[in-house]
Order: sequence, then structure tokens, then C-alpha cells
Amino acid sequence: MTDTRSLSTDVAIIGAGPAGLFAAFECSMLKLGCVLIDALDEVGGQCCALYPEKPIYDIPAHPSITGGDLIGALDRQIAPFDVPRLLGRRVEELTGTRGAFTLRTDGGDTIRAHAVIIAAGAGAFGPNRPPLEGLEAFEKSGAVRYYVRRRADFTGKHVLIAGGGDSAVDWALSLRDVASRVSIVHRRNRFRAAPESLRQLDEAVGRGEIEKLVGYQLHGLRGTDGVLEGVDLVTLEGETLHVPCQALLPFFGLATDLGPIAQWGLDTIRGTIPVTPSTCESSMPGIFAVGDVASYPGKLKLILQGFSECAMAAHAIHPIVHPDTALHFEYSTSKGVPTT
Amino acid sequence: MTDTRSLSTDVAIIGAGPAGLFAAFECSMLKLGCVLIDALDEVGGQCCALYPEKPIYDIPAHPSITGGDLIGALDRQIAPFDVPRLLGRRVEELTGTRGAFTLRTDGGDTIRAHAVIIAAGAGAFGPNRPPLEGLEAFEKSGAVRYYVRRRADFTGKHVLIAGGGDSAVDWALSLRDVASRVSIVHRRNRFRAAPESLRQLDEAVGRGEIEKLVGYQLHGLRGTDGVLEGVDLVTLEGETLHVPCQALLPFFGLATDLGPIAQWGLDTIRGTIPVTPSTCESSMPGIFAVGDVASYPGKLKLILQGFSECAMAAHAIHPIVHPDTALHFEYSTSKGVPTT
Repeated sequence: MTDTRSLSTDVAIIGAGPAGLFAAFECSMLKLGCVLIDALDEVGGQCCALYPEKPIYDIPAHPSITGGDLIGALDRQIAPFDVPRLLGRRVEELTGTRGAFTLRTDGGDTIRAHAVIIAAGAGAFGPNRPPLEGLEAFEKSGAVRYYVRRRADFTGKHVLIAGGGDSAVDWALSLRDVASRVSIVHRRNRFRAAPESLRQLDEAVGRGEIEKLVGYQLHGLRGTDGVLEGVDLVTLEGETLHVPCQALLPFFGLATDLGPIAQWGLDTIRGTIPVTPSTCESSMPGIFAVGDVASYPGKLKLILQGFSECAMAAHAIHPIVHPDTALHFEYSTSKGVPTT
Repeated sequence: MTDTRSLSTDVAIIGAGPAGLFAAFECSMLKLGCVLIDALDEVGGQCCALYPEKPIYDIPAHPSITGGDLIGALDRQIAPFDVPRLLGRRVEELTGTRGAFTLRTDGGDTIRAHAVIIAAGAGAFGPNRPPLEGLEAFEKSGAVRYYVRRRADFTGKHVLIAGGGDSAVDWALSLRDVASRVSIVHRRNRFRAAPESLRQLDEAVGRGEIEKLVGYQLHGLRGTDGVLEGVDLVTLEGETLHVPCQALLPFFGLATDLGPIAQWGLDTIRGTIPVTPSTCESSMPGIFAVGDVASYPGKLKLILQGFSECAMAAHAIHPIVHPDTALHFEYSTSKGVPTT
């Protein structure tokens, strides 16, 4: 049990994805002590676990950055503050009230904190798996995957991508350079992806770089011993189509599960924690939520919104930790200086 | 009059500082056409005009970036979209209603747009100048300055910095490497700067790298023909102190002036435009405000908040331009993909 920690700090941050890391930065800039706790063994959350090589285009002042590089940059940004990390530990229990919380992890750690920031993303995440016979054998061999960790895994293969959202479209565009052939299948004609990505998809389809199959659902897998030979598709009317391929990537979204968080007495709505927009405080005083797990009217689930929410939460937490010290600053250089 | 433009677009963006540039990105990602208009001759707003070389530390995933480099990165991020720019033109007149606005500039340009995003920062900005006798001559010679455009201008000089905010503290820290001596004077003992910066200031003072003078105000300038020889300080009790120096940098904040914007019928509060937080829409439907010019309860004037506001405004504008097309996406890769 040498590994078990007992910590006392200002702010316990649950989740070490992009929002959690930036929450640690914002707290540190306000001289609030904090600790990062994550169930995964490394920081980065989904960015590192699911799409470390996928370029992201909407991080301000990063025209293009992969999930892995984004996390690397955020990690360097908090490096000067030496924030303690409890990784590979899931917070099981949260008790106490505003100003005095106690968290306990499945590793037996105890963390005392004045305030809590939940930056748990989609919570414990797993892919929505298609209900196909014999799926497990192909998952086990890697012929069916839900994440692309290395683009090179698909070099020279005919890849079938299923789904109509951003991941399906973006990976179709990204893998066409390495795969021998890329097909994308979606049960509707209408894709739900960024307009700019859809424009690029249409261009690629026009140039014959990507094959678009619409109106079909996944129906069956062909092959033996985990070696995929093709996928059967079917329309709503029962017409079938066989697509020979060596890899299938279904992008049907993530199954989200808040896990123990749902048991702490917080209000939740469809797997998210509703918060007051200007402070990101949850229904329980002293407990805040930021990033994808936080919800409010008009919420956009963008990483950049999460960053902004971190700043609001840290500023709202400051008076909990330092009730007698007014926070006299905002450190954006765009502001100029308050008149003396 | 060959230079006069007549444009028709989806969104007119007033202001080409960091918020304006990122608003152009967010609009473009949603396939909304837009145009950037700024009174200055180059993009970047205050970042480029006032502190192109000043490092900023709180841009997410940029551990340290200068104002100039931030603008460069934002500019590259919108480069693929080829957004038209009307620079060196001030919007004088805004008429019309949601869905059909007309803007006119002092250059005689006419812009028609479905919606307007005001990203005007502090508006037309100028420094608060100290009321000192003979000030103009020293301003003219460059001995008294309100912005640092090149750190090298202060090489080998004894620099006196006046003020207690972030700019004063950050520049004191930054210039100590090039100046022969840096003194900072503030009329109170309490500085209003980022706690982390204050910690660094105290360290630098402790090491004798910066001289801290508290309880004094600026009282007079010594020197002739624009050559500064020293500055007289005075306490509230009338005690005086002479500081020999060759340069004075007063950081007493910016005088803000919304200019013509104040005449367009928008509600304003102390030089800012109050908006609905989740949409950034102003009191006039179809006119939005983002960045430092926008205000709402709990608003933090941080560049990263401005970025987040741009995303909200662009999403809120989409139905104005495309009333019959629901926007089925959010392009953060942190979200995963909606189930098909």
C-alpha cells in the first residue's frame, strides 16, 4: 500500500483530459493548489486514448494540432506549477460540503479539498458497437476498430468506415492517403459533420478518392479467424450490397457512463452535470463542472468552450479558498491595466 | 475612389483583433461568409498595436506566446477561407434589422450582411496619460511611452515603470533583461496583477533585479528638449523622491471609446455591450458582441473567453443566415460522434 496517497489541497480536479489540464493551469495562475485525478494511466483523456494522431482544427491559434500534441502543449503549460497527479485511480466517493470535501479513490487514496472541479468528459467512455454476429473475433484481431491510434495500421488496406458524424468523415479524409481504398457508409444521405469537412468529402468523392455509400446499414461480417474479407450492407428495403475490405471502422459515437459521479447527489441530465454558466458551479455548492460533462442552455461541446469554463470555475472558486481576499486581476493582456 | 468597396456577405465582423479573427474562423467553419473590418491598418488589434513582443501565458495550449505570434497563428488559421478584409476603415454607420444590415465606413465602403459581430475590444483605444507638466515633449521624443513595441528600445537604459496592474508588473519582469535598471512605482502597496506574476516580481525585487517604490505618485519630469533625466515622485504626505532615469513607462490603463458604435442604438454599459451569455447577442437582434467589448454577469476579460464567445455567436448566427437548415454538428473531436 506504499502507493496510497493522502493529500490536502485547495481544488481536486477529477479528469485529466484537456479541460482538466487547463483547469489545473487556471487554478495555478490564481495560486490555488490543486491535484489532478484520472482513471486512465496517463493524462489526455479521449485526446490521447482515442485519437492521439487525429488533427483538430478548431483550437484557437493552432491551425492544426493532433490530440496528442494538444495534450503535450497543455501539459507543458502546467509544468511550472508541479501539480500532483493521481493517475489510474477512479474517484469512488465524494463527501462533505463547500469548503471541506473528502474524495476517496479505488486505490485507497484520500484527498481533502475546499472545492472540486469535475472535468470528466463523457465519463468512463466506450464505443457504441454494431450488433453484428461474430463481431468479437474481428475486434480481437484488430480488423474492426473504434479508434485510430496509428494511421499506419491501415497502410495499403481497403478500409470501410461506417457512420455519418465528424469522426467518420474526418477519418475517411485522413486515411485516404494511406489506405488502398476508403469507403464510407451511412444509413442516411445526410451527414452530421462540419460543413467544411463535408465539402472536402464531396470533393474527394468527386475525384474518386473516397467511395460514398448512402442508405445502407451494416448487416454482416465475412471472413474467418479474425481475418476480415468483406462487409455486407443492407438498405431499409432489404437490398444488399457486399463491400470487400480488410478493415471496418464503425464510428457510432461513445457510450457514456458517469460512473460513481452519478451517486454523489449532483443533479444530472442525460449523463451531464447542469451548471450555472457564469461560474460552472453544479447544483451542489463548491462542486464545479467544466468541459463536455458540464451542460447549460446553449452549451457547445467544443474543447475551446471547456477552456473558457475552466477560467470561470477557477475565478468562482477563489473566494471559497480565500474568502477574505478579493481577486484583483484578470490576466489577459488584451485588457490593458486597471487604472491605479 | 477605386479603393471603395461594396460587399454583400453573411456576417460583418467589426474589429480584427484576436476575437475578430477567431470569429472569422468560427463563421467560416460553419460555412458562413464574412468580412473583417478594422480601423487599424493591420489585423491584430491591441495585440499587434500595443504589445507585439509581450509574452502571453494564458492562451490554452500555448505555454508562452507573444501578441504578435498569437495574431500570426490566428491569421494562418483563417488563411484557407480567404476572408475579405477592409482595413484602415472605421464603420461609421450601421442600419437595418436582423437579416438585413447595411454598414458604411469612413472610406465610403458599403457592406450588406445578415448579421453583425462586434469584436471591437476596448473600441478606439488610447492610453490614460499622467497629468505632468511638459509631458508632450517627452512623449514626442519617445522618452515617455505607453506601449512597448520593441524591447530593444530600452537596452542599457534605466527604465521607470509606473502602475500596479499586469502590464506594469509584466513589463518590469520582461525589461529587466535588457534595461540597465528597472524601477516600478505604484501609489499603493497592493498591486493588481496575476498572483504568479507578483510572486516573480517579489523574487526579482529580492534579488535586486527590480527596484520597487510603493506609496508614490508621479509628480514631475526632469530634462530638456525631450531628453529625460529623471522623474520626481511624491507621497500622499508630500514627501518627494527623485528617480534618475532615461525612460518612463506609465501603465495607467486604456481610455476606451466605443466611437460611432455608441450611436447605433445598442444598449451599452460603461463602454461595453451587454449580451446574452449563451448567444452573445446584444440588445438588438442580429447584432452580436464578443471579446472585451462584450459584457455579461461574471464576464472575465480574457482572450480565451473571447474565443469561446466567438463559437457561441457563430452558432447563434447560423439560423439567421440559414433559417431552414438545422446545424447538425459540433466539431470538437472531444465529443465523439453522434449516434447515426
